[in-house]
Amino acid sequence: MSRQIILNAFDMNCVTHIVAGTWRHPQSQAVRYKDIEYWTDLAKVLERGLFDGLFIADVLGIYDVYAQGPEAALRAGAQVPVNDPMLVVSAMAAVTEHLGFGVTAATSFEHPYSFARRMSTLDHLTKGRVGWNIVTGYLESAARNHGLDTITPHADRYDIADEYTEVLYKLWEGSWEDDAVGTDPTRTEYADPAKVHPIGHEGRHFRVPGIHLCEPSLQRTPVLYQAGASTRGRQFGAENAEVIFIGAPTKDILREAVADIRARAAAAGRDPYDVKIVNSHVIVTGATETAAQARYDEFRSYTDPQGALALWSGWLGTDLSRFELDAPVEVTDNEFLKSSVEMFGQGQWTLRDFIDAHAINVDGAMSVGGPSQVADELQEWVAETDVDGFNLTNVITPGTFVDIADHVIPELQRRGVYKTEYTEGTLRHKLFGRGPRLPESHRAADYRHVTQEVSR
Amino acid sequence: MSRQIILNAFDMNCVTHIVAGTWRHPQSQAVRYKDIEYWTDLAKVLERGLFDGLFIADVLGIYDVYAQGPEAALRAGAQVPVNDPMLVVSAMAAVTEHLGFGVTAATSFEHPYSFARRMSTLDHLTKGRVGWNIVTGYLESAARNHGLDTITPHADRYDIADEYTEVLYKLWEGSWEDDAVGTDPTRTEYADPAKVHPIGHEGRHFRVPGIHLCEPSLQRTPVLYQAGASTRGRQFGAENAEVIFIGAPTKDILREAVADIRARAAAAGRDPYDVKIVNSHVIVTGATETAAQARYDEFRSYTDPQGALALWSGWLGTDLSRFELDAPVEVTDNEFLKSSVEMFGQGQWTLRDFIDAHAINVDGAMSVGGPSQVADELQEWVAETDVDGFNLTNVITPGTFVDIADHVIPELQRRGVYKTEYTEGTLRHKLFGRGPRLPESHRAADYRHVTQEVSR
Repeated sequence: MSRQIILNAFDMNCVTHIVAGTWRHPQSQAVRYKDIEYWTDLAKVLERGLFDGLFIADVLGIYDVYAQGPEAALRAGAQVPVNDPMLVVSAMAAVTEHLGFGVTAATSFEHPYSFARRMSTLDHLTKGRVGWNIVTGYLESAARNHGLDTITPHADRYDIADEYTEVLYKLWEGSWEDDAVGTDPTRTEYADPAKVHPIGHEGRHFRVPGIHLCEPSLQRTPVLYQAGASTRGRQFGAENAEVIFIGAPTKDILREAVADIRARAAAAGRDPYDVKIVNSHVIVTGATETAAQARYDEFRSYTDPQGALALWSGWLGTDLSRFELDAPVEVTDNEFLKSSVEMFGQGQWTLRDFIDAHAINVDGAMSVGGPSQVADELQEWVAETDVDGFNLTNVITPGTFVDIADHVIPELQRRGVYKTEYTEGTLRHKLFGRGPRLPESHRAADYRHVTQEVSR
Repeated sequence: MSRQIILNAFDMNCVTHIVAGTWRHPQSQAVRYKDIEYWTDLAKVLERGLFDGLFIADVLGIYDVYAQGPEAALRAGAQVPVNDPMLVVSAMAAVTEHLGFGVTAATSFEHPYSFARRMSTLDHLTKGRVGWNIVTGYLESAARNHGLDTITPHADRYDIADEYTEVLYKLWEGSWEDDAVGTDPTRTEYADPAKVHPIGHEGRHFRVPGIHLCEPSLQRTPVLYQAGASTRGRQFGAENAEVIFIGAPTKDILREAVADIRARAAAAGRDPYDVKIVNSHVIVTGATETAAQARYDEFRSYTDPQGALALWSGWLGTDLSRFELDAPVEVTDNEFLKSSVEMFGQGQWTLRDFIDAHAINVDGAMSVGGPSQVADELQEWVAETDVDGFNLTNVITPGTFVDIADHVIPELQRRGVYKTEYTEGTLRHKLFGRGPRLPESHRAADYRHVTQEVSR
């Protein structure tokens, strides 16, 4: 069987996730993000298209770096207002059978004890279809509104994340033995206390002496996603993540990133292919190339440069309002501008040029074309970079995903590189084909000994 | 129109909420608490019966007071394992149109900034059908697992709750003006920054400078529930709650409590009837009195004294394992035992007698009988105590609620004391008939000025 491509749909509980302005497109349903029917409709579209999962981004702050205030972000609806991503999952789970749900949550703002329960609850409710995108939180405004003077420094955030995940692994993997809860319907006791173990965690940042509040869910630990691009972030991902998101604009950049992550995973004692790597990709498609190009032009007419500047300023932590829009800019000190040059070539760029070039293809790669052209391109990305699949940014929602389901996925299926039906079982089993639990080579498996030590 | 009775269904995301042992009854679906279908089925049962709301209790710790360990609670499934209550709401909202959802959350373990977003998200998703049961958390084990040395003292917990709710009211009521988000479908800007205000909260326990992350939901502040029985708790309830839960075993106790709460509400500048008061009540019913009595006997045969002792020890903060089960006990120093004496009369009581007397009617009142007998009793409670309705403890779930929907509610409807259809609109409007928002006399309304001050 040919290598199968992974396709994740990427969305957020707000009107503008990545592409600013297109919520105003007449077909966009983004303003319905507050309605439960938006989410149940979206889930049904994705399951019909056999998408692997819906991945919901999140921030717990606002984009107030641009012009040192939230005004531009509010006007553009740029990730503000933003509702909680976890709370829409159960409604979607009730109307689907196979779709995976990745929810983003930071290790900085909630105690791991209650967070562990939230994820176990979702894993129970979805029957093992939930994933967790581990982020450390990058917005200063999020830290300030949680009572901190400023955001914790980057390296410290990852040290905290190391211990945070350790607490979670102990709770999820080590606290309850598989048969702690009986299954005999005539039993008189619900759980066997001899098989439920306090984790006794005493660390630098957290102290959790007790047992996990939840009985084991199908996956125990949810499927672990991560997107850290820094060296420290990539190291954390290689040690923990089962799916890593990259936003690489060129095949050269992606190939190098993929190789680096697989090498780090191997160095951490894991099979390099136990980490699935997916790259951000925008697909604008239609029945024909002409239709796709027309759709692209139409999308372009709705983009919003001010909203884009608000988002980019937040992502980069740099107030882009200090650049003149039409003056040439130095690219050497700016990751965003540097990556644009790698995409579009050297030249006399202005900030307006960059924003314009990134209007639709914000953070990653893009394919505009009919079914066979897009399929060709996706296959080339896989063949030339060793990437496992794509995290599909929406330009309009759910329209982008409808287009992909209608045009691209059938073409990939014809070529034998995309599943024609879901595998039964949990999200982890669908991705790796080895059952619901993390493999023994994963860091979390170390904490399974909690059970044995205490019970013997 | 006769005074209408409020009926809330009371449940928890676990197998044993209040009545220990009955999860083993063949008709109990409690062991399905992990399945989304359990919750969507329950919601449909309750909406069919025109229940006002489903109220989901919660703890973030375990009952380890009895015999100084969690063993008895684990065996009985007594509120452990326990899943998150918020995460089941959206699935139930998707299959109902009117049922209200009260979720319990403590002011001790999550920062108000992220909690405010969770509740706003639920209010959006349910179209204004969500309530929040404000608790301060009473389990030592919850505090310890959240990194505290011990639980915060009772009075301090309420001081924190005062400030916690202040932060929430500022975010919910004061941050976004009603028309901050446009409604014109052709508008080019999503929100008007001039109408979105940072709350600038600097308090003793919390510092939240920024704006609320969510645009206004229908109710803004969810309907506020509370159950504090202490003087301090009752004062907090009178100042904040719109619905107060009481667990009074006799009409005399309830009458006094109701009068006290209404007097405190009036002293806080509120209409005494702006606080709806509901008492815990167990209803065991059937088509006839004989059928009801048979059901009661059947339920009794499934009760679990050890599970009850685990729960009572946690509620009282007293290890009841130090009492001999069959020796007479002093009742003077123990609230639980005292209330039992008020219910059942003075006498030579043993702990076994108390547990036995409370096996089904754990914490409040009870009616066992056919439709007209139960309806008579409920009407007497209302007439003699000025209570507004009942919080219905389940003995088996959803069976208890099915029985009430099939037998008691039709009888109350015939007597004109129970609605025959839902009122359109939000949960708050359904309860008070004055629209979706808190009245001006409520403490939260003080924080609406945030908007005006900053914007003028």
